[in-house]
Amino acid sequence: MGFKEDFTLKSNELLEKRVMRDAIHDYIHVDHLIIWRLINAQEVQRLRRIKQLGGTHQVFQSAEHSRFVHSLGVYQTIRRMLETECLDNYLSDYDKLCVMIAGLLHDIGHGPFSHSFEGVFHDNHEDMSVRLILEDSEVHDILADFYEELPQDVASIIQHTHPNKALIQMISSQLDADRMDYLLRDSYMSGTTYGQFDMSRILRTMRIKDDHIVYKESGVQAIENYILARYHMYWQVYYHPTARSYEHLFQSIFLRVKDLYQQDYHFQTNMKYILPFLENKETNRDFTNFDESVVLYYFREFTDEKDPILKDLSLRFLNRRLFKYVDFDDINEVEEIKKIASQHGYDPRYYIITDNQKQIPYLHYGDNFNEIEILDRHNQLSPLPLKSEIVSAILNSKNYKSDQKVFFPKELKDDISIL
Amino acid sequence: MGFKEDFTLKSNELLEKRVMRDAIHDYIHVDHLIIWRLINAQEVQRLRRIKQLGGTHQVFQSAEHSRFVHSLGVYQTIRRMLETECLDNYLSDYDKLCVMIAGLLHDIGHGPFSHSFEGVFHDNHEDMSVRLILEDSEVHDILADFYEELPQDVASIIQHTHPNKALIQMISSQLDADRMDYLLRDSYMSGTTYGQFDMSRILRTMRIKDDHIVYKESGVQAIENYILARYHMYWQVYYHPTARSYEHLFQSIFLRVKDLYQQDYHFQTNMKYILPFLENKETNRDFTNFDESVVLYYFREFTDEKDPILKDLSLRFLNRRLFKYVDFDDINEVEEIKKIASQHGYDPRYYIITDNQKQIPYLHYGDNFNEIEILDRHNQLSPLPLKSEIVSAILNSKNYKSDQKVFFPKELKDDISIL
Amino acid sequence: MGFKEDFTLKSNELLEKRVMRDAIHDYIHVDHLIIWRLINAQEVQRLRRIKQLGGTHQVFQSAEHSRFVHSLGVYQTIRRMLETECLDNYLSDYDKLCVMIAGLLHDIGHGPFSHSFEGVFHDNHEDMSVRLILEDSEVHDILADFYEELPQDVASIIQHTHPNKALIQMISSQLDADRMDYLLRDSYMSGTTYGQFDMSRILRTMRIKDDHIVYKESGVQAIENYILARYHMYWQVYYHPTARSYEHLFQSIFLRVKDLYQQDYHFQTNMKYILPFLENKETNRDFTNFDESVVLYYFREFTDEKDPILKDLSLRFLNRRLFKYVDFDDINEVEEIKKIASQHGYDPRYYIITDNQKQIPYLHYGDNFNEIEILDRHNQLSPLPLKSEIVSAILNSKNYKSDQKVFFPKELKDDISIL
Amino acid sequence: MGFKEDFTLKSNELLEKRVMRDAIHDYIHVDHLIIWRLINAQEVQRLRRIKQLGGTHQVFQSAEHSRFVHSLGVYQTIRRMLETECLDNYLSDYDKLCVMIAGLLHDIGHGPFSHSFEGVFHDNHEDMSVRLILEDSEVHDILADFYEELPQDVASIIQHTHPNKALIQMISSQLDADRMDYLLRDSYMSGTTYGQFDMSRILRTMRIKDDHIVYKESGVQAIENYILARYHMYWQVYYHPTARSYEHLFQSIFLRVKDLYQQDYHFQTNMKYILPFLENKETNRDFTNFDESVVLYYFREFTDEKDPILKDLSLRFLNRRLFKYVDFDDINEVEEIKKIASQHGYDPRYYIITDNQKQIPYLHYGDNFNEIEILDRHNQLSPLPLKSEIVSAILNSKNYKSDQKVFFPKELKDDISIL
Repeated sequence: MGFKEDFTLKSNELLEKRVMRDAIHDYIHVDHLIIWRLINAQEVQRLRRIKQLGGTHQVFQSAEHSRFVHSLGVYQTIRRMLETECLDNYLSDYDKLCVMIAGLLHDIGHGPFSHSFEGVFHDNHEDMSVRLILEDSEVHDILADFYEELPQDVASIIQHTHPNKALIQMISSQLDADRMDYLLRDSYMSGTTYGQFDMSRILRTMRIKDDHIVYKESGVQAIENYILARYHMYWQVYYHPTARSYEHLFQSIFLRVKDLYQQDYHFQTNMKYILPFLENKETNRDFTNFDESVVLYYFREFTDEKDPILKDLSLRFLNRRLFKYVDFDDINEVEEIKKIASQHGYDPRYYIITDNQKQIPYLHYGDNFNEIEILDRHNQLSPLPLKSEIVSAILNSKNYKSDQKVFFPKELKDDISIL
Repeated sequence: MGFKEDFTLKSNELLEKRVMRDAIHDYIHVDHLIIWRLINAQEVQRLRRIKQLGGTHQVFQSAEHSRFVHSLGVYQTIRRMLETECLDNYLSDYDKLCVMIAGLLHDIGHGPFSHSFEGVFHDNHEDMSVRLILEDSEVHDILADFYEELPQDVASIIQHTHPNKALIQMISSQLDADRMDYLLRDSYMSGTTYGQFDMSRILRTMRIKDDHIVYKESGVQAIENYILARYHMYWQVYYHPTARSYEHLFQSIFLRVKDLYQQDYHFQTNMKYILPFLENKETNRDFTNFDESVVLYYFREFTDEKDPILKDLSLRFLNRRLFKYVDFDDINEVEEIKKIASQHGYDPRYYIITDNQKQIPYLHYGDNFNEIEILDRHNQLSPLPLKSEIVSAILNSKNYKSDQKVFFPKELKDDISIL
Repeated sequence: MGFKEDFTLKSNELLEKRVMRDAIHDYIHVDHLIIWRLINAQEVQRLRRIKQLGGTHQVFQSAEHSRFVHSLGVYQTIRRMLETECLDNYLSDYDKLCVMIAGLLHDIGHGPFSHSFEGVFHDNHEDMSVRLILEDSEVHDILADFYEELPQDVASIIQHTHPNKALIQMISSQLDADRMDYLLRDSYMSGTTYGQFDMSRILRTMRIKDDHIVYKESGVQAIENYILARYHMYWQVYYHPTARSYEHLFQSIFLRVKDLYQQDYHFQTNMKYILPFLENKETNRDFTNFDESVVLYYFREFTDEKDPILKDLSLRFLNRRLFKYVDFDDINEVEEIKKIASQHGYDPRYYIITDNQKQIPYLHYGDNFNEIEILDRHNQLSPLPLKSEIVSAILNSKNYKSDQKVFFPKELKDDISIL
Repeated sequence: MGFKEDFTLKSNELLEKRVMRDAIHDYIHVDHLIIWRLINAQEVQRLRRIKQLGGTHQVFQSAEHSRFVHSLGVYQTIRRMLETECLDNYLSDYDKLCVMIAGLLHDIGHGPFSHSFEGVFHDNHEDMSVRLILEDSEVHDILADFYEELPQDVASIIQHTHPNKALIQMISSQLDADRMDYLLRDSYMSGTTYGQFDMSRILRTMRIKDDHIVYKESGVQAIENYILARYHMYWQVYYHPTARSYEHLFQSIFLRVKDLYQQDYHFQTNMKYILPFLENKETNRDFTNFDESVVLYYFREFTDEKDPILKDLSLRFLNRRLFKYVDFDDINEVEEIKKIASQHGYDPRYYIITDNQKQIPYLHYGDNFNEIEILDRHNQLSPLPLKSEIVSAILNSKNYKSDQKVFFPKELKDDISIL
């Protein structure tokens, strides 16, 4: 028998278990020292300085929560899943430990305003999470110190390569702990009702069948409700144009920085925290140092730079002079707007931004692993759309809602509105 | 100028306005004496003794609220609608008074376990509400005493004949105060999240266009959410088979009473409160006397009747020996079950009940009055399905969820399950 | 080894455990057949027809919940207590079963509008609960059928005679499952915030010391908060004068019935459900038949009685013509009011009612059993007031809030207000 | 007639009123352009980068909200107060505008981790708010641009010198919009129930008497509840020792920076944002630039400083190696601990910190302005303690809870615990 087979959660429990109060889960329980050590590791603590929702708090003012508290919430949701009879019996104690840790760490690779940041620097937060787990970090040391194969086992869950598919489903599927926590949390914090769904019922209908997680038919309604909760949160909250405007500004600033760097512009600001990213050779340490407080510090510094574009964009960002926006159907309209911008002295590369948001409520996969599968009373599995009229209707409509906008400085509003 | 034109709400205000605490709306405000008098009228107070959700509290134990508190909630929702700028400006003070009263009174025609009751006695609660408003009742006297045309004006809103279509929409349409209050209230009381939706936002996007109520495009998401909330409440709560089982039992008891009456059975019980219904000549007074406390009193009395079927059904009802149920596809299966029931001495007329629940989330009407219409930024109207991918998808699917069950005594379970 | 020692909850578990949705506890879990059978017993089902808060829904309109759902909540609260490490280890499985059952059954002896009813008929609901458990009832049969000593063991918890004091504390002490559930539930249902407190934290600080339940010092704040929650619920909700007025009317009706009975008045109404109480020889069956639906039935019947007092009081009750009230300091004021009432033809025995509400937030007992005791970090016990400045301050003030009112018919208002 | 007398809110309304979603107040309404401009001013936007609760999110993880969203909440609470009949009638439109603005701006003088910051630099946030309103800031310009006396009129409310005492009471008294918003918000965000109270009822019982705000006797219970909510929030949340530990660390870092500066230490870090504070000559611009993102940036920089104390403290702060703590009664114990610290090489000036928290639930003032006054039915005023047994009891006890702790590095725990 090896370490993994012998390992029991019970024998590794803390003498005095810890709890942390949380607005969503009431309490977050920490029963094992390794979890406590990971929570306090600098890569996890750094997430306190990264907002969960990027620019959304510009619209939903009270949604100011961090990725840190979401990560605790994912961990706690995994713990609740593990308490269900079906998973409690199905998983080994070692696998349970791995998946709790994967839940806690799955977001550590996120940069500030993650998607905008990745837009400029072509990083991928999932890869970065894995890299931080596998090498050269405090979390890596804590994991490896506990058991040498633990970093790899945790990483393989996040990378979708772990042999036990149920573990992957718990963290990253169409119905996972990540989404469950963020819907409930973002909804609560923003003061909207859209993201509420019946987590208790979904967990109660969870079963294991053919080595993966499926749901009893009596859970279909609760799952439909969850899928639509997610759909509505996207359109009402996550894709709100004011939040997008804020994030575009962020992206334009970094794009300008990158361009200036490539043009050998002389920055007055000490660029040491950004340089590794510009040079495309950031270490894990560089990454961990880079959070929203650093970004905001730089934006303030940039307001004293000589480059008028960088200075102007940074002032707009800090003092909330966000870009305005209109819908467009045709790329020619955008070209028109770019022309106007140029005429008024705004470089379209930074000042005219387009995006197109689409949200597909449910993906119908060929294979059974990514599908939400429903177990009927004859013990047969079907993909969710066969059991849900609502999901099926949406899938067949093909006519997904999308939202295509062009963003521009407020000063151009009158010129553009007459187009 | 006549009464209606001269009437102002302000000049009719109570010196000391009244408020009542409510779990859904925080406070229910009563600013006018006529509202206060109507609330205390016996036809409205009677609704305290009629449960809002019939048998649902057999499953959702804490959902024990009455139609009375729902009626207050509809009235309060109307008040909130009237506070919106668009309705405040559009409606005369007299119309405002009429619609507030219609909201308060629209349910006074409900019998105990309304739908089951109507199933046996072929009454219609809407007609009965109108009848009570128009004649021979305490609410009628209060209304007529205030202004002679008031009973008719209020009734015409409930009857859908009022010339001002917006008033009808407020009380009775696919997006009305009645549904808004019951979704929020039933959801809160049952402890489920399904019925929650964003009422504030829907009210904020309300507009008047071409003399009826429409909604700005920015409200589409909130309306979708409301439509799906309703859909899920139907399937999770209102159509729960245990609740249906309870209501079928109710209906079988009354069916048996009716049959016995027609067979000249001699009831030991003093039937005075039921007789008018059996003779099909109930007065308004008879109707008002008839509430759930009377029904429960009779059911207890029936446990001492000689007729074994009436006695048995009443005992089952009072002591919660509900019918069991299975899905069926084919009427032949039901015939089979009826045969088994007969063999075991259970008269299928009372002991084998079938039903078929269907819930169409949204109805697409030809005319613009019953449709939820959306006002776009070009000031054009479209029916909701053209603006909502979700609603459109559901409409086009044609494949609505339905649920067809047969209910039978628990004692037959083993015989039936082998079919 | 006997039955009690051998008994394990695990081996008695239902194959398919049941859950019921609840607005307060989310789910109420039923793991054992005997609990399920007891829930469906007629003495427990009868509680569906008894309102938890008597006349309070006359003020807090949405607080219409029954003693049935509260009883489920007490049972569920006991279950949560039993899940704490300290009680889980301390109690035998048989004791756990007993206390869960005692929680479920402790209120079955309540009559309709309990306190008013007891005021006329001198019953005591605790004695009646015990009587129903010990003999001649469906719950008795279920208990005795399971194990012959079970009725007595359950009853002794409710009677405070059980040798294990912790069991008694769980059901009936200054910090028990009964109060915890009713504060949370009444607060939620009435839509007030006053009764909210931090149950999770109180349960987390529970410990066993010297064979009874005590609380860690870190729980003092949560307990203070609970004590004040209760204090505020009494004054804001339970003692609201409108609710008292409603209950006084109830009591006057029954007082009149009793007086008429003793004067050999000939009732037109068939008195069979009340007679046993008037003759002071009600059986358990008589008691179980007597619920609010019967009372309301009788009140409606009484509106046709010849006795003008009984008729008038019943009409007032059904149509909410409640008594008005004023504070008084001196019994002479009441005598004055009674004189006025007599002059106007109102018999003061039924029409002039006084009461005096007092609520002592915390009782400091000599013995450690009734006291809330606090365990400090030196493992020493102190009574709560020594550890809580707030509770100590309240105890020492001696100047408890009280509220003394006289109630009278509205028609006398002008005559009385000039006094 | 001058500007103030002529001014009407109505005529200054925005054509399209704005609303912002908020988790506490549902919506925050902006009806006037000047409010919208102030919200977007840099001094107000800066508050997004200052946490409302300093180090509290170290314990109550989800309480990560900023002073910005609290400021919006205070403004919205003032708006709700102004909607009450009594204030609506009593105040001029100009005064209403002033007090809404004062609510929005009252916190702009807060530094990062305000109280710790003020502990080192002896600033006072109220004075700073006033200074920013009166001169040299974006908010000043917006105010003066609207009307020249507006800055002074707003400032005088915050300074308690405005002639209209009711305005001061609304912002800063024992029952004000500031406290109301923070109790509800901090409670919601932290996921505790302690801070909930019945704001609707308190506002409903507000009256004007003798030119200041008083409360009807029917509000006493709600006010008691509010006072105790505040008391419990202090002990359960605000004074939590882990939060204090975090703030002490903050303060030690700045104390070390100040000492090093006075010793002419050569910082490697570019100190430009801190220098003005060290030199005690910060301008408004310097102040506005200084927020939590700058502080966190500096703390990261300090981890590369040569000074071992500054480096060590900064690492502890960023990576959550907080000080441990014990209660102490006697200053000699602290001296003992300081000796141990010195022996282990920890300079007690930075590593051994004591504090003493006290919370007096209610202050009984001689004058009627700071007192909460209660208006009885005879139209007489009394101070709250005469009308509230609970508040009176607490006032008379004199034995206020206090909590005196010494904080020290975890490494010294064993040496200290044997003392």
